[in-house]
Amino acid sequence: MGDRGDRFELRLARAAELVERAGLAGLLVTPSADLVYLAGYDPPPLERLTCLVVRPGSDPALVVPELERPRALAVSTGARVETVGWRDTEDPYDLVGRLLWPTGAYGVTDRTWAAHVLGLQAAAPGVELVPASRAVAGLRAVKDAEEVALLSAAAHAADRTFARVCDNGLGGRKEVDVAATLGELLVQEGHDSVAFTIVGSGPNGASPHHEPDGREIGPGDPVVLDFGGRVGGYCSDITRTVAVDEPPDGFVEVYEAVKEAQERAFRTVKPGVPAEDVDRAARAVVEAAGFGDRFLHRTGHGIGLDEHEPPYIVAGNREALEPGMSFSIEPGIYLEGRFGVRIEDIVVVTEDGATRLNEAPRDLRAVR
Amino acid sequence: MGDRGDRFELRLARAAELVERAGLAGLLVTPSADLVYLAGYDPPPLERLTCLVVRPGSDPALVVPELERPRALAVSTGARVETVGWRDTEDPYDLVGRLLWPTGAYGVTDRTWAAHVLGLQAAAPGVELVPASRAVAGLRAVKDAEEVALLSAAAHAADRTFARVCDNGLGGRKEVDVAATLGELLVQEGHDSVAFTIVGSGPNGASPHHEPDGREIGPGDPVVLDFGGRVGGYCSDITRTVAVDEPPDGFVEVYEAVKEAQERAFRTVKPGVPAEDVDRAARAVVEAAGFGDRFLHRTGHGIGLDEHEPPYIVAGNREALEPGMSFSIEPGIYLEGRFGVRIEDIVVVTEDGATRLNEAPRDLRAVR
Repeated sequence: MGDRGDRFELRLARAAELVERAGLAGLLVTPSADLVYLAGYDPPPLERLTCLVVRPGSDPALVVPELERPRALAVSTGARVETVGWRDTEDPYDLVGRLLWPTGAYGVTDRTWAAHVLGLQAAAPGVELVPASRAVAGLRAVKDAEEVALLSAAAHAADRTFARVCDNGLGGRKEVDVAATLGELLVQEGHDSVAFTIVGSGPNGASPHHEPDGREIGPGDPVVLDFGGRVGGYCSDITRTVAVDEPPDGFVEVYEAVKEAQERAFRTVKPGVPAEDVDRAARAVVEAAGFGDRFLHRTGHGIGLDEHEPPYIVAGNREALEPGMSFSIEPGIYLEGRFGVRIEDIVVVTEDGATRLNEAPRDLRAVR
Repeated sequence: MGDRGDRFELRLARAAELVERAGLAGLLVTPSADLVYLAGYDPPPLERLTCLVVRPGSDPALVVPELERPRALAVSTGARVETVGWRDTEDPYDLVGRLLWPTGAYGVTDRTWAAHVLGLQAAAPGVELVPASRAVAGLRAVKDAEEVALLSAAAHAADRTFARVCDNGLGGRKEVDVAATLGELLVQEGHDSVAFTIVGSGPNGASPHHEPDGREIGPGDPVVLDFGGRVGGYCSDITRTVAVDEPPDGFVEVYEAVKEAQERAFRTVKPGVPAEDVDRAARAVVEAAGFGDRFLHRTGHGIGLDEHEPPYIVAGNREALEPGMSFSIEPGIYLEGRFGVRIEDIVVVTEDGATRLNEAPRDLRAVR
């Protein structure tokens, strides 16, 4: 890819191409993974508007608070980006509005704050805003070799974290303490930062996004471990469900259904397959096992600079998979008052199928 | 305030009152400080919509992804909140849309993601959305005694952090290393988490939001230290500018102007005074010293559960200050290629003036 400058120049050119192909007039990019991806610039989102305006046929322009201009200028995108500072007594929405065509549709970063969206709509009433993930879904979905290498490094660090947290033992410990251990291990194994650490033991596992609490993990408890962080900006996200000593009646049957659903979904992945087919493959197994209504969520989500991004692996998403797309496959079954099971790997679409980035065993593991 | 449940019931009732007084039909609250404040519920913002609908005359309703419903139900707001789950194959915007009057204006959390704002606008085309901070600015601006106590605890922890980082010495160290030390000290002194650590030495200090880099701090360098974190959800935010050994020519004059501007602004604060008057008081001193065009930003921002929130201390904001409002006073002068000076305290409006929460000395400190 050459040096960093070249990379951003290529990405900005590709964004302009996608914008044109989608029939859009341009793209409004605020602080987010979109801005990191397109310009290598990563300020925190704030009430002061920072906005990169990408317009096919013109150089991109970066509208930035005056007090952040030196910091923005220090980032070399390698592309000719015109930088426009605004002071706290000026109206940044009018400033952006003047850079746009008076009518037409513009893609806007999905995570742009409401205050900014409403400000832009008021300043440019003839312009239609559409979420960038829908307008130019392909922008970040297909990963290049370097991105896949970072996702892979993150996945392997998560795999090692899982192995070590199991070796440590779970029985007799509180969920919050296991969550803290997961955070420490993620960093020890090479993550730059921790994003989340879900520990759902026994009945708590039936809540997919359970907030770890003071519950002490005991013998016979299934435990859902779902955690991730970042390596070089790219996310890990893995889930394994383990059992402390002997699992309760009915658990193994549920576990095997989830494991088989995960496997079938994985085998469905190849270029050209609609994303929803992967969801359907997982769901068919869970339904056949009699737990269809206990599979409470979609089968997966894209992953990259964001934990959740396109493509979403969900019924209704007919988007065709392409080589280089990366996403989670994470079917689950949740039995209220009893336990939950979820198994999740990150996979990447290859030329003729897919490869798993996570290599932690998926067979049921009994831990102390 | 009674127990936690009572508190949220009172806050929700007050929100409904403010909404009515502002002529709004309701309030749409997504994961953010607004949701923490009104319901004690703190999920991460996600692409799956979570939205609390506050409607005067009806019980509030919480629309939540089905997989997060158990977690939401575990939060007792003490108020009757109807919880409505939606599955990944359903449209949450239609669901919220059906809870709204078909026309009228609704306040929406300032930080709600664009994808959600645009989804809501499409589902409820007759409804007008306005940023909540503008529509019901008073909602979180006036702090109660417990909130002030947490802001004060955070401020004092930041003060101790400043003292210790100076005692450690700055000369011969890299900015990034000092930033890392600040992070460690913030936590050691009682912060639950670190929010930001700006270290701008020598010419880097002229960039108000400088990203600490590998520059080694040397003799004669002025250093801007601006850092903060959270205690019990509430933010600290302090800036001090110090000099390593003998500062350069002209520095003391600039320093004294900023210190005097900060003092004058502080003395302007009392109930009934328009926010912009505080800005004007600081600016007058800086202008008189001949650096008016080098004071690149507003004088301050409200602080609470968010680092930056209303009231903004900026020209054009005629909002009258009220007892219990908390905000920063942080004038600065930035001389490109040379150095920057900023001095910032968090203050709270009292019945007859204001009190500073930060007690770190504002006199110029020479450090090793």
